[in-house]
Amino acid sequence: MSKKIGSGTYVMSSPVKITCFDAVVGQKEHDGPLGKYFNNWSDDEYFGQDSFEKAETYIQKEAINRVIEKSGFSAKDIDFVFAGDLLNQCAGSNFCVRDIAVQFFGLYGACSTMAEAMILASMVIDGGFAERSIALTSSHFCSAERQFRFPLEYGAQRPPAAQWTVTGAGCVLLERETDKPSVSIEKVTPGAVVDMSVSDLANMGAAMAPAAALTLKRYFDDTVTSPADYDLIVTGDLGLVGSDLLRELLLRDNISLGSNYNDCGVMIYDTAVQDVHSGGSGCGCSASVLCGYILPEMLKKTYRNVLFVTTGALMSPTSSLQGESIPGIAHLVNLKVQAE
Amino acid sequence: MSKKIGSGTYVMSSPVKITCFDAVVGQKEHDGPLGKYFNNWSDDEYFGQDSFEKAETYIQKEAINRVIEKSGFSAKDIDFVFAGDLLNQCAGSNFCVRDIAVQFFGLYGACSTMAEAMILASMVIDGGFAERSIALTSSHFCSAERQFRFPLEYGAQRPPAAQWTVTGAGCVLLERETDKPSVSIEKVTPGAVVDMSVSDLANMGAAMAPAAALTLKRYFDDTVTSPADYDLIVTGDLGLVGSDLLRELLLRDNISLGSNYNDCGVMIYDTAVQDVHSGGSGCGCSASVLCGYILPEMLKKTYRNVLFVTTGALMSPTSSLQGESIPGIAHLVNLKVQAE
Repeated sequence: MSKKIGSGTYVMSSPVKITCFDAVVGQKEHDGPLGKYFNNWSDDEYFGQDSFEKAETYIQKEAINRVIEKSGFSAKDIDFVFAGDLLNQCAGSNFCVRDIAVQFFGLYGACSTMAEAMILASMVIDGGFAERSIALTSSHFCSAERQFRFPLEYGAQRPPAAQWTVTGAGCVLLERETDKPSVSIEKVTPGAVVDMSVSDLANMGAAMAPAAALTLKRYFDDTVTSPADYDLIVTGDLGLVGSDLLRELLLRDNISLGSNYNDCGVMIYDTAVQDVHSGGSGCGCSASVLCGYILPEMLKKTYRNVLFVTTGALMSPTSSLQGESIPGIAHLVNLKVQAE
Repeated sequence: MSKKIGSGTYVMSSPVKITCFDAVVGQKEHDGPLGKYFNNWSDDEYFGQDSFEKAETYIQKEAINRVIEKSGFSAKDIDFVFAGDLLNQCAGSNFCVRDIAVQFFGLYGACSTMAEAMILASMVIDGGFAERSIALTSSHFCSAERQFRFPLEYGAQRPPAAQWTVTGAGCVLLERETDKPSVSIEKVTPGAVVDMSVSDLANMGAAMAPAAALTLKRYFDDTVTSPADYDLIVTGDLGLVGSDLLRELLLRDNISLGSNYNDCGVMIYDTAVQDVHSGGSGCGCSASVLCGYILPEMLKKTYRNVLFVTTGALMSPTSSLQGESIPGIAHLVNLKVQAE
């Protein structure tokens, strides 16, 4: 009866289908290389709200409402929402779902939340507990800066390895049975926490890369596949520094990531001209790249077999002030489109 | 194939078993009416660590290590850990699990986290994804006070409806198959977020009671049972004020909670003499009462059929400063012991 293969990869008894998805982003994300893929954006960082935190709730609501509307279902047809974000007490998600009377599981996985939500949503569907579930997450540059770093008004300088929190939300609807065009989730590898004693808050890519390496190595070993078997292997938000480190770490295990490897934090901005240093980060980074770019391109068959690996840095400002290092985690979802 | 009954209660295809559990608490909890049931406690609020936050991680570690040791398994036999706490970025749990290389799902459900974790752990076991999983949570009076309210040194006065955050951690091991003495999880009702516009941070019982009422009513309707069918119906931490309100709200739906109803926040302290005003709160409140008192008493057959309903107040200090009300949630787990 177990759906586990190898040391920790799980195979659905029948593929769970992603049938609807949407992303909402800010101006800077729309100005980036993926801008033409983002149909919903605003040049107002407040998105018409009166605080950055309310703006973050607003973009989550926009994303989930658009997905529900596109799906042809109503909220009462959704069994569960799995959501989380970076705000203290996951306030973005909690205030988003209070207007939608759906049974709710709040998650905290830092920037790994999107794949964490998709893994749990898939498992409860495949386990017979739900017909359809939603995975949802967000981040907002301004709410993250003042919570994790400095008030924007300080104009603090950013070191080269620092990343730029993406203003964006992404939402996917997962279903058991469907005739609609869809992307399938067949295999997932939930992450374990890895702490290699990196403590530089301005280099979270380095803190998360070992977790990404562990999850990817576990997945390749469990499935007896190699990077060359996939059209696209994309990490959540390791940025330029963390991505290089991931390649290096995997090479030690004789796993070579080729040109099919990329990172959502590198893809979403033009790092050379948008002054984002090492690239994008935040739960909304991988979520908006997934929902704005990867899933639509999979439906067009640009990519047929994708590894989507979101990475989270699990420290808190308090733990760092108390001298702790940064634990990392990486959750992996294998996405596929059927051959014709 | 669906395991859903009624509007949102889920029935396991075969009962998931709780085989091991443990609680770790502080001095004040040991001084309370349940003191004799708590075998692991310390009169040092730092538990030998150098900060309150590290103390919270320490009690989680103590709880999980004791459970794993008692179980006869080692960490590598555990498929998943589901854990969360009240610290910003759930730092208590993240730092706890970094030393245990188990695949991890971080949760945020405020004081509802224990039942949330047990529901998800049960679903992934019953869905065929795990043989055994752990649900774990904690809270600490001192870390919660300074994060959510005032530094202890201020000596702030507490209004009568305020609750006292429990210093405690609780951990349960859930398994698919076992011959060991165990408590079964047969039915669960995950909560939806309810916000009735209560905004008084010193009266969170009132903010959470409507969510508890919704989940209990849904459960009784879905299962066609009534409060009299259970030996014990216990809410997470509504305290004295919230418990009275819950009785009143359910009466409006002609559901009468009798003397078999109690609240973990009321049970854990002697509210008349321990200066805790409305009673206990915090993720560790319901978790330690469950693992220290309820589960051991169920194995002794003092209680055979229990509704364990944890309640969470999903605001953040920032959302409250911005004028928001307090969204609430309540997750329900039906616990049973087999007849002889």
